[in-house]
Amino acid sequence: MTSEIRRKRAGGRAGHAERAGVKAVDQMPWRIPVNPDRPIEPMGPEGVQAIHKGAMRILSEIGIRFLNDEALGIFKEAGCKVDGDTVRMDEDFVMEMVGRAPAEFTVTPRNPERRLPFGGKHILFGNVSSPPNYWDLERGKVTGFMEGFRDFIKLTQYFNCIHFAGGYPVEPVDVHASVRHLDCLYEKLTLTDKVCHAYALGKERVEDGMEMVRIAGGLSPEAFRSAPHMYTNINSVSPLKHDFPMIDGALRLVRNGQAVIVTPFTLAGAMAPVTMSGAVTLSIAEALAAIALLQYVAPGAAVGIGTFTSNVDMKSGAPAFGTPEYMRATQMTGQMARFYKLPLRSSGVCAANVPDGQAMWETCNSLWAAMQSGTNMVYHAAGWLEGGLIASPEKFVMDCEVLQMLQRYMEPAVWATTPDDIAIDTIAEVGAEGHYFGCQHTQERYTTAFYQPIASDWRNYEAWQLDGSVWTAERAHRIFKSIIAEFEAPPMDAGVQEELKDFVARRKSEGGAPTDY
Amino acid sequence: MTSEIRRKRAGGRAGHAERAGVKAVDQMPWRIPVNPDRPIEPMGPEGVQAIHKGAMRILSEIGIRFLNDEALGIFKEAGCKVDGDTVRMDEDFVMEMVGRAPAEFTVTPRNPERRLPFGGKHILFGNVSSPPNYWDLERGKVTGFMEGFRDFIKLTQYFNCIHFAGGYPVEPVDVHASVRHLDCLYEKLTLTDKVCHAYALGKERVEDGMEMVRIAGGLSPEAFRSAPHMYTNINSVSPLKHDFPMIDGALRLVRNGQAVIVTPFTLAGAMAPVTMSGAVTLSIAEALAAIALLQYVAPGAAVGIGTFTSNVDMKSGAPAFGTPEYMRATQMTGQMARFYKLPLRSSGVCAANVPDGQAMWETCNSLWAAMQSGTNMVYHAAGWLEGGLIASPEKFVMDCEVLQMLQRYMEPAVWATTPDDIAIDTIAEVGAEGHYFGCQHTQERYTTAFYQPIASDWRNYEAWQLDGSVWTAERAHRIFKSIIAEFEAPPMDAGVQEELKDFVARRKSEGGAPTDY
Repeated sequence: MTSEIRRKRAGGRAGHAERAGVKAVDQMPWRIPVNPDRPIEPMGPEGVQAIHKGAMRILSEIGIRFLNDEALGIFKEAGCKVDGDTVRMDEDFVMEMVGRAPAEFTVTPRNPERRLPFGGKHILFGNVSSPPNYWDLERGKVTGFMEGFRDFIKLTQYFNCIHFAGGYPVEPVDVHASVRHLDCLYEKLTLTDKVCHAYALGKERVEDGMEMVRIAGGLSPEAFRSAPHMYTNINSVSPLKHDFPMIDGALRLVRNGQAVIVTPFTLAGAMAPVTMSGAVTLSIAEALAAIALLQYVAPGAAVGIGTFTSNVDMKSGAPAFGTPEYMRATQMTGQMARFYKLPLRSSGVCAANVPDGQAMWETCNSLWAAMQSGTNMVYHAAGWLEGGLIASPEKFVMDCEVLQMLQRYMEPAVWATTPDDIAIDTIAEVGAEGHYFGCQHTQERYTTAFYQPIASDWRNYEAWQLDGSVWTAERAHRIFKSIIAEFEAPPMDAGVQEELKDFVARRKSEGGAPTDY
Repeated sequence: MTSEIRRKRAGGRAGHAERAGVKAVDQMPWRIPVNPDRPIEPMGPEGVQAIHKGAMRILSEIGIRFLNDEALGIFKEAGCKVDGDTVRMDEDFVMEMVGRAPAEFTVTPRNPERRLPFGGKHILFGNVSSPPNYWDLERGKVTGFMEGFRDFIKLTQYFNCIHFAGGYPVEPVDVHASVRHLDCLYEKLTLTDKVCHAYALGKERVEDGMEMVRIAGGLSPEAFRSAPHMYTNINSVSPLKHDFPMIDGALRLVRNGQAVIVTPFTLAGAMAPVTMSGAVTLSIAEALAAIALLQYVAPGAAVGIGTFTSNVDMKSGAPAFGTPEYMRATQMTGQMARFYKLPLRSSGVCAANVPDGQAMWETCNSLWAAMQSGTNMVYHAAGWLEGGLIASPEKFVMDCEVLQMLQRYMEPAVWATTPDDIAIDTIAEVGAEGHYFGCQHTQERYTTAFYQPIASDWRNYEAWQLDGSVWTAERAHRIFKSIIAEFEAPPMDAGVQEELKDFVARRKSEGGAPTDY
């Protein structure tokens, strides 16, 4: 990928599309995918029991630290054993609380047509969240900035294969931390109409987030609280600890009827046992502790269990992703999520630094693990690099190709076996000397029979070479640029937008949120 | 990937390894993988029946052309309806013949420790076969040549994750076609000790191939014929046709106790119906027709059913690989292979022209389809590009990383749940403030707990950048060079090698094989 090629701008499919005045990407329509495949279950029932019993022993014997006085008070009230900031809870309490959680819930964003069901056989995909850095083929690696943030939000809205807007796709460090949440949520709520997330990082950010989602939806406070319209994701501080702001934010959300995903970050060999079942057991215990708290406070609250169990590279200590251990841990957590009847979140992740071969085999492994585990919500499904330290628009486009293929893969038409599909009459008609290009059966179906790629080049080598020998990452860069050039924000009522603007201005004038957290 | 970086030679893991005097690749040991996952089965029993009944109608009503007089005579003798060169056979005959085939068989190469079981839950991987062209980062795309052929055979032998040597990994066009099979088989039989393949391309090539495998194994003619020591793969000429040389070669092999895989090449929308179940039905019919012939001639012969069903790009007519349609067709064929109790062959394939992101997402999809379908034998699992028109050593190394991960993924240790794995005592010992790097439980396990990569770079961006910002394909190129530099051929008895040499010399002096096929 030489810089000459990089500067050549007009070639390729995207260039043609621009000149022809058509869309940059001929993408699949918005759909809510249903995963028809039976999950892969490495463990037998005794393995599920071993992890369950292990998690219960952690919760009842070892205990979990909650660095949040309110939570400690609630656990005391609930009859749990609270020793300093360590909470011990028995199996009956945990299972009773977990039993209150719905197996499936919906989240309705400002555009009700984008309503999402979490749970069951649904699998939904979201953009990369939270990298501090941005990388693209032009800039290389740079600190996150607001224009890059906006570009990722535009990609998130543009691609129909992306269902929800996660955390900040890149941290816009050029906006002051005290008001960053206001600007970021304003951009998210105006540039997308999809389900979105607010960080549980302090009272002001959480309360501002809920208020802005309420305003964007044109909802009364009561209507907002009556059902989930947004969600947050909280992480434990593994091992065995939940910190103040995340628990505080989670409590605020469930008390207001909003959804919370609890995702321990258990790297086997670092903050969790080096064995995958040990790391999964620890993760389950930490997640259930928080879910029990939330269900005690708000019975029936919309919650999900997340997995972020992988292994470290024992040579460098760096986290690895998309490894065999990552895949099996994700599948094992899927078995546990079904045991507890909780929606499951996993991720589309990789360790690679640039959008090359390694990035795609690691990401494909992660995404297949999501498919195989019965995951309902796939975080970081597009744009993630360097173990989450980089967000890349090229990687975003490349991942969307993979996500589109997964979504096509789930369409029952692909494996239909009606007499029209088996097509014996056509096989007889074409015979041994003909071909199927021209026959009626093909003519009636060819426009929708197969997946149509967006970033793949299926031409032969010579045609590809004549067009500049453009490797995948460079094609994805061109597509990214074309999408940004043609992007149109989804419609929003002018009054609502004004109200949002006013809210942001007022909160900025009040100083936003404290930054000493 | 600039040419400056390309010329920089000493950096990276491979460079370190060379300087330290250790192996270029710290790879996993040789093992016979057992796939523990339940296959993904998109169709219900009624779908399996629909395809079966469709295939039976094709065989009994439409018929298959056999451009081979001997085969026509055999079918006549067997009571099938032979009309010109079209053979129609009824379900009872087909099912009786297919019922004679073993569900599992072994192939024993010259090194008996490399014996391979085909069938059951085993999944075995082989190198890319038959591309006419070679591509690497230094040469670009060039016509296949003998030195490149040798390099691929060395890679095939070197990597423990590659179990068998398929067809020519690249066609060495610089060797005359009349004697090419002699040189190629000599190289294969001396540079590897793994199970190998001979092409069914004319009597002389097949007979020479069997004789050379017999000599290499130090076997008497009787011992050679007593069990499979090699195999061939034949393709039908879809739609609905088997040609002369492949059927001739297959008959010669099964009469000599050797194994035959029958793989129709049914591209949906081109030589097969545009619907995936139609393409699979056609493929099954073509495969069963040849298998019925072979089982009539040699009851109990070692045979396998292959799938090469994918779709074409309806815009360009180019074949697509690793698509959602490809994956489901492979899984559907897996369901049919289990219905007929036949070992299954599929492939690790892609449409990409260079070893980039697209190459890896397509190949990962193909390889996951192999895993999901219960495939027993994965052709083209390493090194394939451009829909099979290019073999690439960089792609070979990159694919071997993926294959190693798949093989690690199948090891039950990854998801073990003994008390030692759940590790409650260690979780109690480390507590909420410690970490797991230094604890005894980790120290006892860290060298074997996780998959160790060969071509992946798991370091952070800055460390990767300091080391030259080397993308995956370039890292793979260096590893390829290191492997070739350190390659040592497996031992072979000097007398056997002499006998092989003499055979090749004699057959060359006789003119080899006719080239007017």
